Amino acid sequence: MVSNVGYVLMRLRMMISTSDQNFIDSITLFVALLCACIMIGHLLEESRWINESITPLAIGLSTGIVILLTTDGKSSRILEFDEELFFTYLLPPIIFNAGFQVKKKQFFRNFMTIMLFGAIGTLVSFSVISFGATQFKRLDIGFLETRDYLAIGAIFSATDSVCTLQVLNQDETPLLYSIVFGEGVVNDAMSVVLFNAIQRFDLSHSSSGIALQFVGNFFSLFTTSTLLGVLIGLLSAYIIKKLYFGRHSTNREVALMVLMAYLSYVMAELFDLSGILTVFFCGIVMSHYTWHNVTESSRVTTKHVFAMLSFVAEIFIFLYVGMDALDIEKWKFVSNSPGKSIGVSSILLGLVLVGRAAFVFPLSFLSNLTKSKSEKIELKQQVTIWWAGLMRGAVSMALAYNQFARSGHTQLPGNAIMITSTITVVLFSTVVFGLMTKPLVRLLLPPPKHFSTMLSSEPSSPKSLALPLLSSGQASEADLGSCKAPRPTSLRTLLSTPTHTVHHYWRKFDDAFMRPMFGGRGFMPHAPGSPA
Amino acid sequence: MVSNVGYVLMRLRMMISTSDQNFIDSITLFVALLCACIMIGHLLEESRWINESITPLAIGLSTGIVILLTTDGKSSRILEFDEELFFTYLLPPIIFNAGFQVKKKQFFRNFMTIMLFGAIGTLVSFSVISFGATQFKRLDIGFLETRDYLAIGAIFSATDSVCTLQVLNQDETPLLYSIVFGEGVVNDAMSVVLFNAIQRFDLSHSSSGIALQFVGNFFSLFTTSTLLGVLIGLLSAYIIKKLYFGRHSTNREVALMVLMAYLSYVMAELFDLSGILTVFFCGIVMSHYTWHNVTESSRVTTKHVFAMLSFVAEIFIFLYVGMDALDIEKWKFVSNSPGKSIGVSSILLGLVLVGRAAFVFPLSFLSNLTKSKSEKIELKQQVTIWWAGLMRGAVSMALAYNQFARSGHTQLPGNAIMITSTITVVLFSTVVFGLMTKPLVRLLLPPPKHFSTMLSSEPSSPKSLALPLLSSGQASEADLGSCKAPRPTSLRTLLSTPTHTVHHYWRKFDDAFMRPMFGGRGFMPHAPGSPA
Repeated sequence: MVSNVGYVLMRLRMMISTSDQNFIDSITLFVALLCACIMIGHLLEESRWINESITPLAIGLSTGIVILLTTDGKSSRILEFDEELFFTYLLPPIIFNAGFQVKKKQFFRNFMTIMLFGAIGTLVSFSVISFGATQFKRLDIGFLETRDYLAIGAIFSATDSVCTLQVLNQDETPLLYSIVFGEGVVNDAMSVVLFNAIQRFDLSHSSSGIALQFVGNFFSLFTTSTLLGVLIGLLSAYIIKKLYFGRHSTNREVALMVLMAYLSYVMAELFDLSGILTVFFCGIVMSHYTWHNVTESSRVTTKHVFAMLSFVAEIFIFLYVGMDALDIEKWKFVSNSPGKSIGVSSILLGLVLVGRAAFVFPLSFLSNLTKSKSEKIELKQQVTIWWAGLMRGAVSMALAYNQFARSGHTQLPGNAIMITSTITVVLFSTVVFGLMTKPLVRLLLPPPKHFSTMLSSEPSSPKSLALPLLSSGQASEADLGSCKAPRPTSLRTLLSTPTHTVHHYWRKFDDAFMRPMFGGRGFMPHAPGSPA
Repeated sequence: MVSNVGYVLMRLRMMISTSDQNFIDSITLFVALLCACIMIGHLLEESRWINESITPLAIGLSTGIVILLTTDGKSSRILEFDEELFFTYLLPPIIFNAGFQVKKKQFFRNFMTIMLFGAIGTLVSFSVISFGATQFKRLDIGFLETRDYLAIGAIFSATDSVCTLQVLNQDETPLLYSIVFGEGVVNDAMSVVLFNAIQRFDLSHSSSGIALQFVGNFFSLFTTSTLLGVLIGLLSAYIIKKLYFGRHSTNREVALMVLMAYLSYVMAELFDLSGILTVFFCGIVMSHYTWHNVTESSRVTTKHVFAMLSFVAEIFIFLYVGMDALDIEKWKFVSNSPGKSIGVSSILLGLVLVGRAAFVFPLSFLSNLTKSKSEKIELKQQVTIWWAGLMRGAVSMALAYNQFARSGHTQLPGNAIMITSTITVVLFSTVVFGLMTKPLVRLLLPPPKHFSTMLSSEPSSPKSLALPLLSSGQASEADLGSCKAPRPTSLRTLLSTPTHTVHHYWRKFDDAFMRPMFGGRGFMPHAPGSPA
């Protein structure tokens, strides 16, 4: 993380040729700000009205104001956001951690629903927003290409459901939680894959043939990226199982896991695949196999290392967005026509609301058709799912910088307006929608009324209640364990939908072939002296 | 770590304007090589003849040869070593970890001896080598300034005792182990501080007044840097104790510890102090106070994170040195006069041997004068201490790059010869001396004969025997605990030397004022549900 700061500062430094002293000044200030964000974020955590994103945004904004005043309005930033910085260093830990911490059992149980919302839903939202954005032509905001409109669709399809997840109770509403979490993860991957596909694809000759080719391209990218991630994840499991590092060194195990996780990302980029998808599935495979093959201390360490990297990367992005929000250059164009900027931001917010409604309710209806009564998604829950995906965050911001601030500057009026509008939408949705989330969720889903009946065959794991701090990894382990012997009550559920059957066969295959080969829970020989 | 690779590659990329694809190629290759080093290093660990440094050196060399062949002899490197990369990203984790993992009790018990060897010894070695280096003038190797000769002294005073520490048994020879380890750490800091002082100091007018000023400058640098490190360490302990992060999140604690450790380094650099000393003492304070104020999982995580970062940073440096050893440009100058290069390398090796002998034996004699018979350093142990510091490693290499390859290139013949000679000395000492270490130590200190009688008042902690993997931090904790009630047998030892008295009063002060304020072992309120 710290190196990321250093890296971006170093780039900046070379860009504007500042002195050694300025370089160290900036690193020091930035590291100090990150510390401040962590501390203040902690102090404010008690009040769940404020969420994780608002603190760094506010600190970034205040710092921006101070810098703006001390430099006589010349600059509000201590560093330039580099679009590559985000894709090379900040995004991989966030997405890998999402895959690594995902509750695999819940995820694969609700796999069809999650994919429906995450993949199809994102496509719907993308189409609605892209189509809506083409209406900007009427506002005369400057020249934008077809590619730009499609990019806008991808940028504003990337949701940030962290805020809602903080409010939802995993034990009270397991299905809802798993859908919101799973959709958020698949959505992140989808929007980035879409964005990359748009950037790479030749859109100069638009025809229906091209559209089909785009779709084909997209799915082959999706499949090969996933396979590469799975492959590297399995390789890491196999290597660590065969070599059994634990005998000697936790450091080796941890270093190897971190490096191989990153390797999956850069290899995908090397082969022109989607690093995001690769690293996400690598994370899932690593948490299912590799993580169980290492020593107890490595398990604790890797879990927290990945979570921490992701945590710091997110703070970094919000801090930067806060600081960047006051950048003079961008607002220069906007200040000539404030009406246009407000117009664009409002339209985008509207499109976000409509684009999400356009798939949440129809897809919930479709999903309910295949399900038994107890598993249906109720209207109140549908509203919660809709609301959970209204916030726009770090991913949108980074994609927008990538598309509209390529050289770190925003010379074209059209680009400048898109950046300021993105900032406005992110700030508004994070702060306003964010603050409304808790009351809204409490109104829709009052805590006394337990929704755990929805998945009655799945008692909330006692381990996950007893150890709230060791949430995801440990709890999913407990889930897997408690499910090993299929209970009679779950037999019906197991056969009622195709997903469950797939899950059932996968379990059999996993136990018979995969685990003996790649390790995983219960397949690790215990060395004398190692913690059981 | 991974970002460091990325960073240096990014710089390279901008320097030589390669394409995106090349950039990703290089990152992928480098990450894959790091993985290979870790795996092969693990496989070779059984044979203790091969040490941690030889594997990455060998892999780096082989990769260099392959690249050299595939590029038709144009380049052996996939990236350029940047002197700042080392000081900004690679050195801080190595030194911080040294401070963090140091066995504080042993360290402070043998404080006077360690400082004697580490500080005074390094100065002696520095003087001998610097003076010897001035004789290079006769070899006509190109122009070198006074500053360069002094830098050579600092470069070749930085020892790498990791190899010997792998062979020494901590429980059989606690005093020897603690001296070799402690000296290595202080030596690292000293040589870097010396090196920086030389670079910063105006040496154009040499007089005795200047020399005195240099010494004064050096000591004020030493003191203020140490104080800053202690201050930031205490601040981190205080913050974490007051806020008690554990209630909510291990990630916050870990992120805050990592960021504040790095903050201490960059702040020191900001104030023109020695970041190395600051980060080292910050590490000591953090392991004494902060580390005990966090949750159990944060303790495990931070210990392994710091160790892993240091481990990967060292592999990175050796891998790079191996690859860089074949760089054509440097050897072009040397190939015109191979005799000179061999001459310079041999003289340097000789100076290293003499410079170390010049302080180990006299200082051991001095140290023995103040000690009781059972605590004296025997001749065989003196030879072991001498031998332990003959290897030259990552720090020497990095300092040499900093001094003689400032722009990443070695245009001046004098600079080119100094770089190739440093590579030769590092390779020779690491490989040849490294391979001889095990037989030599076993010859000098046969394992059956226990030296634990030397510190008879200190029984080897059962915990440190039972948990070899959780070595430093945990064991030192056990040591501290077992010493809390002073036993009658240790009373004499406690008063026999001033160091012990200082240690005694420090303990009283620590228990009465510091621990209640800053936490530390046994001063953390236990939250319900947290692991005891």
